[in-house]
Amino acid sequence: MAIRLAVLGRACQSSRRVAVGDFSATPSRRCLSQDANRSIAQLLQWRPVGEAAGVVVNGYVRSVRSMKGHRFVSLGDGSSLPPLQAVVPIDQGEGLTIGAAVRLTGSWLPSPGTGQTHELHTSSVEIVGPSDAKTFPVQKKYHTSEFLRTMPHLRPRTPINATLLRMRSDAIASLTHFFASQAFTQTHPPIITSSDCEGAGEVFTLEPATKGSSAPNQSIPEPPFFRSKKYLTVSTQLHLEALAQSVGHVWTLSPVFRAERSDSSRHLSEFYMLEAEMSFVDDLGSIMDFAELMLRSLSTDLFGSSTVQQLLSRPSQTGSDLAPVDIVRRRWEGFMRPTWPRITYTEAVALLQENADMFSQKPIWGVGLGAEHEKYLAETVGGSQTPVFVTDYPRDIKAFYMRAARPDLASAESGSDTSSPGPTVECFDLLVPELCEIAGGSMREHRLMPLVDAMKRQGFAAPALDATGNAGPRSDGDLDWYVNLRRWGCPPHGGFGVGFDRLLAYLSGVSTIRDIAAFPRWFGRCDC
Amino acid sequence: MAIRLAVLGRACQSSRRVAVGDFSATPSRRCLSQDANRSIAQLLQWRPVGEAAGVVVNGYVRSVRSMKGHRFVSLGDGSSLPPLQAVVPIDQGEGLTIGAAVRLTGSWLPSPGTGQTHELHTSSVEIVGPSDAKTFPVQKKYHTSEFLRTMPHLRPRTPINATLLRMRSDAIASLTHFFASQAFTQTHPPIITSSDCEGAGEVFTLEPATKGSSAPNQSIPEPPFFRSKKYLTVSTQLHLEALAQSVGHVWTLSPVFRAERSDSSRHLSEFYMLEAEMSFVDDLGSIMDFAELMLRSLSTDLFGSSTVQQLLSRPSQTGSDLAPVDIVRRRWEGFMRPTWPRITYTEAVALLQENADMFSQKPIWGVGLGAEHEKYLAETVGGSQTPVFVTDYPRDIKAFYMRAARPDLASAESGSDTSSPGPTVECFDLLVPELCEIAGGSMREHRLMPLVDAMKRQGFAAPALDATGNAGPRSDGDLDWYVNLRRWGCPPHGGFGVGFDRLLAYLSGVSTIRDIAAFPRWFGRCDC
Repeated sequence: MAIRLAVLGRACQSSRRVAVGDFSATPSRRCLSQDANRSIAQLLQWRPVGEAAGVVVNGYVRSVRSMKGHRFVSLGDGSSLPPLQAVVPIDQGEGLTIGAAVRLTGSWLPSPGTGQTHELHTSSVEIVGPSDAKTFPVQKKYHTSEFLRTMPHLRPRTPINATLLRMRSDAIASLTHFFASQAFTQTHPPIITSSDCEGAGEVFTLEPATKGSSAPNQSIPEPPFFRSKKYLTVSTQLHLEALAQSVGHVWTLSPVFRAERSDSSRHLSEFYMLEAEMSFVDDLGSIMDFAELMLRSLSTDLFGSSTVQQLLSRPSQTGSDLAPVDIVRRRWEGFMRPTWPRITYTEAVALLQENADMFSQKPIWGVGLGAEHEKYLAETVGGSQTPVFVTDYPRDIKAFYMRAARPDLASAESGSDTSSPGPTVECFDLLVPELCEIAGGSMREHRLMPLVDAMKRQGFAAPALDATGNAGPRSDGDLDWYVNLRRWGCPPHGGFGVGFDRLLAYLSGVSTIRDIAAFPRWFGRCDC
Repeated sequence: MAIRLAVLGRACQSSRRVAVGDFSATPSRRCLSQDANRSIAQLLQWRPVGEAAGVVVNGYVRSVRSMKGHRFVSLGDGSSLPPLQAVVPIDQGEGLTIGAAVRLTGSWLPSPGTGQTHELHTSSVEIVGPSDAKTFPVQKKYHTSEFLRTMPHLRPRTPINATLLRMRSDAIASLTHFFASQAFTQTHPPIITSSDCEGAGEVFTLEPATKGSSAPNQSIPEPPFFRSKKYLTVSTQLHLEALAQSVGHVWTLSPVFRAERSDSSRHLSEFYMLEAEMSFVDDLGSIMDFAELMLRSLSTDLFGSSTVQQLLSRPSQTGSDLAPVDIVRRRWEGFMRPTWPRITYTEAVALLQENADMFSQKPIWGVGLGAEHEKYLAETVGGSQTPVFVTDYPRDIKAFYMRAARPDLASAESGSDTSSPGPTVECFDLLVPELCEIAGGSMREHRLMPLVDAMKRQGFAAPALDATGNAGPRSDGDLDWYVNLRRWGCPPHGGFGVGFDRLLAYLSGVSTIRDIAAFPRWFGRCDC
């Protein structure tokens, strides 16, 4: 992730004055590099030879100690988990309170103390944003995650939460590069949708807010904004499939929404889903290969970043209820391991049944796996080392759009699932210990009549099959448009979705995804 | 944009079988590169030396001509505006109907015809997704944009709309790389928010959808999902400011929502905003410098891509109501020009008043600029060549959070705005001909009391100023949290937002942003 260390000064243009017509362009009064600013991350890496005076650094005061006529200021700017130490003469120390935003100028000199190779000896201190230290809620001490969650606008100022923000940013950049290198097109499927993708029901609906006093009095009620009820998307998959029929492999990192009234460490009402859809792909194995490759590429890339290395070498009391470093490190190593086991649902249920007395709920073929079952599988099949694919679930507990298993291929090639007591679909869940499912995918039913049959079986309104060129939905809200994708050139295709917040929570070691989303929203909670 | 041309085969792993515990991983039956698949964009660049047999290509039939015992198939896969020509023996031609998804195998040979250097002579044709050509709505002929807008699920299959999808993807990748190189942190500010950022009023509100028949009968009504009314964000700026106080410069590319009941080519109910916020920045000039640098970097990067080059060399009748190529080319050249003029609002109004008879609405200082005014300024000041910054608008027509102009600096440095008849704020709008405003930004008021005064002036509830450590909002929905950011270490900062869909519409030449969003939503319309 060397790009992170690029010098900010590249953003700077020399001061200039242009004239187009008779108008003078306002010259820039100060451009970014004129300050010779360096981030604290850059400074901490800097071992100058000889005099290094005139160094300017911006940051926030984390703590101040007074000793021997100096103040020792611990300064953070969000670029680094470890802080910078500044040595400030006592007469420059006014306003150096916890939380203050300051601009320090000085010399970058070898430090006689322990804990840092260099330190900044200031020649001037500018308080650019004072802080009322008496009332500042984020003091330099341990705060519980629940306390910090009550103030998401201030929480990112703790060093660990700034680190989590950087990790998210690095992950987005890494994924963007990876998918481009794989010739995927990044897309923006819609957030406002006409239907609930999976029929799961727990969705948000929206409407225009009633206007305030600025609106003129109206005796005629306004017409509805849309022609029918609209929802916030729970998954972009159906729309991604349409886009995949245009430009081939597509992906998105999009917010999705669930109105679940649950109190869980694994669910939010608003979260980011990484979804990918691949065209002209014949089998589930290719989808799993790609999902695995993507996650391995991401984790390998991030593991080498200073952000993650700092996370993995943090002092144990860094707070925010993080999992122990050795456990977090094992998760990274698991993601980077070259082969992840794959097991069918039928095999999984057999394994669970052999150990049925371990579970509060009896494992039964045809019933969804419980969290205790998934946890057991992740730990046993993956040896707590790698994620585990569980494939080929019973048709009747999965979404209507998943492709029915092709018995010819199943028996000919794997041989392992011939004992399925009922029909299955070509799908997978990807399980990890502790957090259970972090991704799921499937081949999509690309044939018209099997899809129609599956929808009927699951109680959807029968699509219009007598279309004579009118390809849109009959009414605003049905899924005819999705079915109609199959009428005109629908190749075999499939895809998957990764809970991006869950993934980051797992790899960072926070105990709940409420601590990985910057402004988490869940049942009853939408602070700030 | 060489990354686009990366060989898909990199996604492929060799077929393998792993054993962890006793479970066999399902081997991949076919990985991406085993087909030796190439995209059509790659094939069209390929000039093999010698025999090139066994070439496999996936795509969709755009048209078929029969001639001299062969069918000449025009094939597209969304990777290229120009199609591939396949020469198919008549006995392999069954099912080659318009829209069909096919997998062709054959030899890539020099073409005796005009219009292509090479063509594919097929040895086998596989129809992997048949098409009912009689009912396929997207025939090879000119369709109006309005007609295509009624079927957004099929519209991307037209070559020009696939090109627009690729351009969006390239733009996201380019921006992601640019911002990372400038040490910005990419963030995911929330979509569900407690307040309407700008007090503009035209927002969507949300609530859980009432459950269907699957819910148990309940005599007790459920409690509200959130404690107070929630909205879909109209801008992420306020939350970005909080994040900027953690990790420094931040940016996001996020969906935002407006419930405007307007029928306009420049507005959608759901669109993407690119927003950036810069910390420890002292003046508006730096913000404009950076916005200009970013847009110039983006346009220079994209201009060199095959996607944009194809867009600029398209045949004139490529449809979708695109602006003429020479006009679109001039837009790109304007974005790549090194200096964009800057003019204050006060200067702009003086200029407009000199030409007052040209406008239906009289330009008056203190009143917002109309579209006709902005258009005139973009054409005159920018000479229809570059975007134009208009700065320092009257305080009372701008948002509460903008920093009041500092008279000392204004008079000392520019000298041009001393004649302002009233107070101004440090802000800019970025104008282009035809589309008017594509970006806006400002310094933010980072001082506590001036912000509180500005909010009072604009009728916001007075923030609680007696906070004694309780930093959260008093009630769910007020802006105390935003005000409180100023209590503890708020450095001078500023930022800007770019209407991403507007930007892409302008640079691609489509006549309305309804044609740049894949699934556009506006008043009354949410198709699919």
